[in-house]
Amino acid sequence: MPISVLLLANTPDPDRTVAAAARLCYSDVSAVDIAEGIKSEDISRFIGHLRSSGHLSPFEHVAFTFAIDGISRVCSHQLVRHRMASYSQQSQRYVHMEEPEVITPPSLSSNPEVLGLFTRVVTEAHDAYRKMLELGMLAEDARYILPHGWATKIVVTMNARELHHFFAMRLCRRAQWEIRDLARRMLISAREKAPLLFSLAGPDCLTRGRCFESKPCGKPFSTMEEVLSGC
Amino acid sequence: MPISVLLLANTPDPDRTVAAAARLCYSDVSAVDIAEGIKSEDISRFIGHLRSSGHLSPFEHVAFTFAIDGISRVCSHQLVRHRMASYSQQSQRYVHMEEPEVITPPSLSSNPEVLGLFTRVVTEAHDAYRKMLELGMLAEDARYILPHGWATKIVVTMNARELHHFFAMRLCRRAQWEIRDLARRMLISAREKAPLLFSLAGPDCLTRGRCFESKPCGKPFSTMEEVLSGC
Amino acid sequence: MPISVLLLANTPDPDRTVAAAARLCYSDVSAVDIAEGIKSEDISRFIGHLRSSGHLSPFEHVAFTFAIDGISRVCSHQLVRHRMASYSQQSQRYVHMEEPEVITPPSLSSNPEVLGLFTRVVTEAHDAYRKMLELGMLAEDARYILPHGWATKIVVTMNARELHHFFAMRLCRRAQWEIRDLARRMLISAREKAPLLFSLAGPDCLTRGRCFESKPCGKPFSTMEEVLSGC
Amino acid sequence: MPISVLLLANTPDPDRTVAAAARLCYSDVSAVDIAEGIKSEDISRFIGHLRSSGHLSPFEHVAFTFAIDGISRVCSHQLVRHRMASYSQQSQRYVHMEEPEVITPPSLSSNPEVLGLFTRVVTEAHDAYRKMLELGMLAEDARYILPHGWATKIVVTMNARELHHFFAMRLCRRAQWEIRDLARRMLISAREKAPLLFSLAGPDCLTRGRCFESKPCGKPFSTMEEVLSGC
Repeated sequence: MPISVLLLANTPDPDRTVAAAARLCYSDVSAVDIAEGIKSEDISRFIGHLRSSGHLSPFEHVAFTFAIDGISRVCSHQLVRHRMASYSQQSQRYVHMEEPEVITPPSLSSNPEVLGLFTRVVTEAHDAYRKMLELGMLAEDARYILPHGWATKIVVTMNARELHHFFAMRLCRRAQWEIRDLARRMLISAREKAPLLFSLAGPDCLTRGRCFESKPCGKPFSTMEEVLSGC
Repeated sequence: MPISVLLLANTPDPDRTVAAAARLCYSDVSAVDIAEGIKSEDISRFIGHLRSSGHLSPFEHVAFTFAIDGISRVCSHQLVRHRMASYSQQSQRYVHMEEPEVITPPSLSSNPEVLGLFTRVVTEAHDAYRKMLELGMLAEDARYILPHGWATKIVVTMNARELHHFFAMRLCRRAQWEIRDLARRMLISAREKAPLLFSLAGPDCLTRGRCFESKPCGKPFSTMEEVLSGC
Repeated sequence: MPISVLLLANTPDPDRTVAAAARLCYSDVSAVDIAEGIKSEDISRFIGHLRSSGHLSPFEHVAFTFAIDGISRVCSHQLVRHRMASYSQQSQRYVHMEEPEVITPPSLSSNPEVLGLFTRVVTEAHDAYRKMLELGMLAEDARYILPHGWATKIVVTMNARELHHFFAMRLCRRAQWEIRDLARRMLISAREKAPLLFSLAGPDCLTRGRCFESKPCGKPFSTMEEVLSGC
Repeated sequence: MPISVLLLANTPDPDRTVAAAARLCYSDVSAVDIAEGIKSEDISRFIGHLRSSGHLSPFEHVAFTFAIDGISRVCSHQLVRHRMASYSQQSQRYVHMEEPEVITPPSLSSNPEVLGLFTRVVTEAHDAYRKMLELGMLAEDARYILPHGWATKIVVTMNARELHHFFAMRLCRRAQWEIRDLARRMLISAREKAPLLFSLAGPDCLTRGRCFESKPCGKPFSTMEEVLSGC
């Protein structure tokens, strides 16, 4: 089941909105005028200044809502550990898992013996799940037999500051492949709407020129393109 | 100095966005399809259901950003105690308070003797502030002499769930007049963009039919109009 | 695998600490004196007052840390959705799942046919997991085959206000059996250290005398004993 | 009015508690055993490892509660902007400000002309406040005339992770003198209870060897002693 990430909604004109909020802090302009007459070069300058000094609180004023299909419950469990965010996830208590929908890690699918084993157990688990429903079990209990790789759907909202934190953590090569892939797709979508806010994003190796991990991966990113390509 | 509240930005189509997120939780629709083909009556039904059952987490997916002018530092100190929100406030450390700008409580301005006293001390405090700046003091220290009622400017972002909590707390008659007035103006603006999400909002007397305060005010609200009129 | 809940640490003397903080808000006592000379009956009175009026913010000053063994990943996924809390969970990326450890829902274990099915698939899944490790797969990927019911270990810290919210949500009969059982054990432990703070806790039917769910369970709790007995 | 900072309560044995939580994440030990048999050298090693790699989430399991007297409303307004914390502040709505209690910035008190000006206006403001109360005004409205420097009392709870963030922001030389002094006193108290957790704390110049401010102060800290001495 392939992953799908859709930017469902976002604060309009995010770059301008953040610049307007930042402008209020340091000038004598009235609040109602902050968004008026702000020039493109000012927006760029304000955001650059906030980024370089790490004063990211104005980034919180713009939010991005993603509709995500086809990630595993392994990945969603990691995702919802980010607490500065809002989630609506498809319920396995109330929605029956009619069809077998599982995420297969690439490392498993590239090994025929492993893939065979994986596929066989997934099928047996799903058969057992359906059988239990037939025998009168509740979906919320029958699901205990479904594999961790089972697919889920989730709507996620994060503001641009939290997104930067999320991208710093989850685009690092030490993050697991699935949440890295999710983060990469979220970043690509967010950049289309807020090119300045996300002109630079990702792990510390790229954004701070330095790795703080105790066991660095040894392959630091040097360009945004590398991060976006996912290689 | 009169208060001014401007809705600077918000998630587009808030009612629909919340309904789409809620729909994902309880149905087998794909995430990319949740916002498509959702009918007006479904939006109304979903939101009504969430409201009545108190399952407000999908309300978090839509955010509202207000630019606020002309509230006192008394009011902004109360406001920023709401932690599920984002703030950018005009700095008194970096921006000089050139003109006397103060919020006068109506109870003071309606009493000529009190108003005279208030105005005289405000003027003396501001004169002292300016004199200190002339004598080389930093604005961040000179401001210690400015009155609590001094005006400030702030940009605030809250999501619709937190707004409901804010309105429940701050539209209660036991809240202070200034933050009540602010909350009322914010609610009026939010309702224009999200009539369903905010069809009902305010203190428990109105929304739950019951007051939980240990010392009730004795004048429970019975209609939304009363809350919005501020009387 | 049986559940085990241990109160690992907590703010000492929680009832007194909360009362001291509340006392500061409404009296002219100095901060350094708030904890001194506060009598037992005052503690009881202050906490009763906060509870009845719903002013729970002083409850945030005391924290409880639980070490939890033997809950499923189904349950931990629900648990970590509570964002006003801190978590340290055993990593399935770095720790190998050597032994089969699974939580079996009582509804499944009480039906011999279902239990047989469940046990067989669990065994096959774990065999497949171990085989994949032998074939050189990473634990973080091999775990995609483990069932949702797999056991995990987690340390959780919540303050007393969030605990009340958690108990209100998760001791409701509409919560799933496993997280209800976890919440019940946490409440029993917390009550030993903070009898006043948790003299009353649980779903709205008990604490507010009213259910706000759209589909009430029909069996409202009427005493604390019922809630604690888990029946 | 002199500042006073008292550590009212904290999670017992904070270094050990954090190490125990961290140990659970990366080993196969049972949750109930994590705090047993953990040796002093392990505690030191675990915490050092968490610090150096920036994996600070286990630091959240221990909380510190401070009772603070004698800070200005300028300082408390800055303080409560830290949202990952809990606050109980003395109410100016319900407690009458009988005596003149004001914080005088050292830069003002060291200049006799300025100090004379400051003291005179403070006295007039407090006289006006008392006069308004006599004339029947509510304390919550009369306080609009009190200076920003007026003293307040507050109880603050932060966990050790948030404290590190707070110390990084507020022990920087670019923070205002009053909140720097407060942060310094909080750090001194916290170190007595958790010497390992706070063996190193403060601004990036000290902890990361680098300043990220757009306008560095030019006087980076090089030792913990310098930070603690407040010079």
